[in-house]
Amino acid sequence: MTEESLKFPVIGSDALKATFRAHASGVAVITSHDDDGNPIGFTATSVTSLGSNPPLVSFNIARGSSSYPQLVIGREVALHALSAKNLALAQRMAGPKEDRFTQEDFELVGNVPVFKSAASVLIGKVRERFEVEANAVVILDILYGTEPFERERPLVYYQRGYLTATERLAENS
Amino acid sequence: MTEESLKFPVIGSDALKATFRAHASGVAVITSHDDDGNPIGFTATSVTSLGSNPPLVSFNIARGSSSYPQLVIGREVALHALSAKNLALAQRMAGPKEDRFTQEDFELVGNVPVFKSAASVLIGKVRERFEVEANAVVILDILYGTEPFERERPLVYYQRGYLTATERLAENS
Repeated sequence: MTEESLKFPVIGSDALKATFRAHASGVAVITSHDDDGNPIGFTATSVTSLGSNPPLVSFNIARGSSSYPQLVIGREVALHALSAKNLALAQRMAGPKEDRFTQEDFELVGNVPVFKSAASVLIGKVRERFEVEANAVVILDILYGTEPFERERPLVYYQRGYLTATERLAENS
Repeated sequence: MTEESLKFPVIGSDALKATFRAHASGVAVITSHDDDGNPIGFTATSVTSLGSNPPLVSFNIARGSSSYPQLVIGREVALHALSAKNLALAQRMAGPKEDRFTQEDFELVGNVPVFKSAASVLIGKVRERFEVEANAVVILDILYGTEPFERERPLVYYQRGYLTATERLAENS
């Protein structure tokens, strides 16, 4: 693609993957618990606000994931926004399931594990799940949250790797 | 919040806003056309992949926005992933509606305006809309896309401003 000509040579899922490699996303960790009260959680790059009145959040998940059956309507969930210093947490929660909760770096809020080092944490409840093909959009009602740490650098996922953003280009007017 | 104590002093929408200031997001521009064929478009920080088989994208929008009634099922949509060099485009498409398409920097694909300078572009169609309170999650079927520019720096929205990410912390293993 150049400025002079506009071409669309990439088809379907290859096009999706190519463009999303070129699209940055924030990195979050979502935690909850299973029916037996055991902690579950995973790294997610699809967390986004869905309006503030009432406060709602959405994220996307594969219906085939082991976490999806646990995210039933009403289930309490913690959503952790991550900064650059949380890189190891992001990697751990995207790695083998048996390693995710072996470190003593979380507290239980009810049965929900909350990582204290996260830049900011929201507690919510699953409100609704919209299933689309093999995936689902999960909607959370947000109940309450922490005071975010100040002066963090964000953790960003881009081009299949983790980055941080330090160069400020413009303020929102 | 400190590492020693976990407190949740912020309630509801204030909590949502506080945490999402601490959560980075990529910046995209979504364009389409109205029933009369006139271009519409806006800057969005909620664009995320919803699975690649079939290729699906979701984004969130206020149902009260002027664009929402135009994003009917089947409507063709262009999704532009933005890099740091697209800052002015991101700002323009978040600014006054009458200024958004006055520059000759887009081509029409069918009736959909496509900005040629964007880091990568996907063309899709509205598949489904899930309405939740005053907002909606819009699902796109992805049809095809451009070859992304290589070696761009991403455009990131964080703490109410635009940043770019240059410091690479880790590759995804």
